[in-house]
Amino acid sequence: MTKKEYAGYEYVENGVCAAQGFTANGLNCGINPIKTKNDLGMIFSEKECTAAAVYTQNKVKGAPILVTKANLAQSGGKAQAVIVNSKNANTCNANGVEVANAVCKLTADELGITADRVIVASTGVIGAPMSVEPFANAMHELAEGLSIDGHDAAAKAIMTTDTVQKEVAVEFLLDGKKCRLGGMAKGSGMIHPNMATTLNFITTDVAISGEMIQAALSEIVKVTYNCLSIDGDTSTNDMVSVMANGLAGNAEITEKNADFDLFKKALYVVMENMTKMLAADGEGASKFLECSCDGAPDQETAIVVAKSVIRSPLFKCAMFGEDANWGRILCAIGYAEAEFDIDKVAVELESEVGTVAVCKNGAGVAFSEEEAAKILNKDEIYIHVHLNQGEASAKAWGCDLTYDYVKINGDYRS
Amino acid sequence: MTKKEYAGYEYVENGVCAAQGFTANGLNCGINPIKTKNDLGMIFSEKECTAAAVYTQNKVKGAPILVTKANLAQSGGKAQAVIVNSKNANTCNANGVEVANAVCKLTADELGITADRVIVASTGVIGAPMSVEPFANAMHELAEGLSIDGHDAAAKAIMTTDTVQKEVAVEFLLDGKKCRLGGMAKGSGMIHPNMATTLNFITTDVAISGEMIQAALSEIVKVTYNCLSIDGDTSTNDMVSVMANGLAGNAEITEKNADFDLFKKALYVVMENMTKMLAADGEGASKFLECSCDGAPDQETAIVVAKSVIRSPLFKCAMFGEDANWGRILCAIGYAEAEFDIDKVAVELESEVGTVAVCKNGAGVAFSEEEAAKILNKDEIYIHVHLNQGEASAKAWGCDLTYDYVKINGDYRS
Repeated sequence: MTKKEYAGYEYVENGVCAAQGFTANGLNCGINPIKTKNDLGMIFSEKECTAAAVYTQNKVKGAPILVTKANLAQSGGKAQAVIVNSKNANTCNANGVEVANAVCKLTADELGITADRVIVASTGVIGAPMSVEPFANAMHELAEGLSIDGHDAAAKAIMTTDTVQKEVAVEFLLDGKKCRLGGMAKGSGMIHPNMATTLNFITTDVAISGEMIQAALSEIVKVTYNCLSIDGDTSTNDMVSVMANGLAGNAEITEKNADFDLFKKALYVVMENMTKMLAADGEGASKFLECSCDGAPDQETAIVVAKSVIRSPLFKCAMFGEDANWGRILCAIGYAEAEFDIDKVAVELESEVGTVAVCKNGAGVAFSEEEAAKILNKDEIYIHVHLNQGEASAKAWGCDLTYDYVKINGDYRS
Repeated sequence: MTKKEYAGYEYVENGVCAAQGFTANGLNCGINPIKTKNDLGMIFSEKECTAAAVYTQNKVKGAPILVTKANLAQSGGKAQAVIVNSKNANTCNANGVEVANAVCKLTADELGITADRVIVASTGVIGAPMSVEPFANAMHELAEGLSIDGHDAAAKAIMTTDTVQKEVAVEFLLDGKKCRLGGMAKGSGMIHPNMATTLNFITTDVAISGEMIQAALSEIVKVTYNCLSIDGDTSTNDMVSVMANGLAGNAEITEKNADFDLFKKALYVVMENMTKMLAADGEGASKFLECSCDGAPDQETAIVVAKSVIRSPLFKCAMFGEDANWGRILCAIGYAEAEFDIDKVAVELESEVGTVAVCKNGAGVAFSEEEAAKILNKDEIYIHVHLNQGEASAKAWGCDLTYDYVKINGDYRS
């Protein structure tokens, strides 16, 4: 996945440890029986952070979601550490909240902070009992090993069916200070619009109030993670958290000024890249798909249309089969829940080798199947939908539907 | 698929020709290059019928949908014939309406009726040009071959990726008269709730007004076809039409009386069976899935919950893998867009060999994986969701998500 360049934002290494004052670590604590696979990760800030998060909208919420919400409420939007495990979602367990609280306490005691400063998260199988024991046994080693290099071990610890670890960080100037913002994410299946999406932890050394983090996060999540669809399912455990420790030394952002916009843009760059990485690594994916929709009467319409295309199983199968079956794209545009004139719609398919127009004014146009096949033979496919009835635009991301998606999810628990 | 028995309704043969006065035929007119595959079907009533239809809610509507709507409006809800082709949807074609009107004219001229008495429908690839020629060449032979036995050839003519033809008919008493109601349907992929669903033609010899047909159809489609989901896609060409010629001799039903209820029940029995046949023959399906939801505060909630489970790709993959991964069921219940208390929910899995409870009070319960595996090894799986917070119930139908679904839709056009 090529990273798109944004003026003023430079990509840097070290993921969640790119920003000053953050360290991380990851290891196997025994939840995952494969000992070479990390299943527990930690992120720590040497200075207390302002923090905010967005959560899954599923009525079934993992216990860690409930506990993190309660912690951030009790601390007044302060946090200093993240503790996260994979392989067990700690969801639909009778003692789930008790376990999650105990994990926070263990983490806090080890790090010398209070339990309400801990963001806790879990991902994995729903409804499998979870005990505190593996956490208790590993906590000291985990904390002792915290380092800047630990971003790698932490990013590995949250992988489930992911085939690659996902980290992005950027450096930018704000109030004359060099700032950094970086993150790590996991996820590939069970990702669906209208939610916080997947597990995602973002750290920054910008000084910014919790309210302003929340404002930026809520806005950006709408046009990044919430425009990602792998399979239309909505997970029970998804969360995006942002922690800001202020070590960059800028004047604290407390209102929607120019600095806020610079921060928001940094968040967008990192989250857009994460979203694209998640799409490209969708369960069983063989192709990355990006659908842009422009010429929409308003942004909501553009989002709904782009997401409708990206979510269509028939379209996703056609992309897997490298078939320029544009009728399915138009069909998915047609059932998008928005008001617009379908007879003005034009569609193009693009990849690195070229672009082909397949539909104009809501009807098919003659095109070379050979040319289309060449374009669709590539790994990154861009679908451009032009509504031709306004100025608003949006993008949505996803992947093709393949044999491997079925295989992975046909025997996930085993 | 075993047919469920309903007191007072007896299953009979002959599909759309079960009711008095109806004949049908089907043949290959050359739209499908495979000459042994019927691609054109006709249904004819010797007496003019009252008629009503429900249509796809996709903004992209096939030309035949527009023409049928216009015909029924012009004739004041009267019809006498159906003409339907497969292999080409006549959708997104610049001259689509022109072609569909010409096909109606050809049909009407051949049968000695007016063009506005013709219900026209098409199914197949979207955006492929279609000419009148194959219809013109075949029309005489098609009409000449009309017979009661022709229900079979007609049912075959509407099959696309269907692996079996779909016909159901029932006999029942109404106003002391023996009545029949029967139908044929096609469809397996691109079937999604909130629409008329797939191509479906129903005929009856009951005497009933067009308004009352419409009232019954709109009510029944909501709890049958609209509770069916194969892949979440919504087609551009879907329609269910009902034609009633009154030859049974009952006093015409013109209001919602006891006779109306008997008619509505007949429609339900036929349409529920069709829905289950469509689910069992979903593209690539290896298992039929029925999700019932009871104990709901209202029927809308029950429908939304049952459909949410049936539609979840992750759940569908788990069923393909015969994995009792109930967490995915609870997850799908949790993101259903309805208001209820998730902590009261119980879930059971059932097949012909037994039932296993997997979840109570919104949390997992211990169960034998071996027993669950035996149950899920069967071809028809029943998922029972008990919300335990009301009296309303509903069912939804679907199938598992398999390698073959991906294969079929990866190279549909070729």
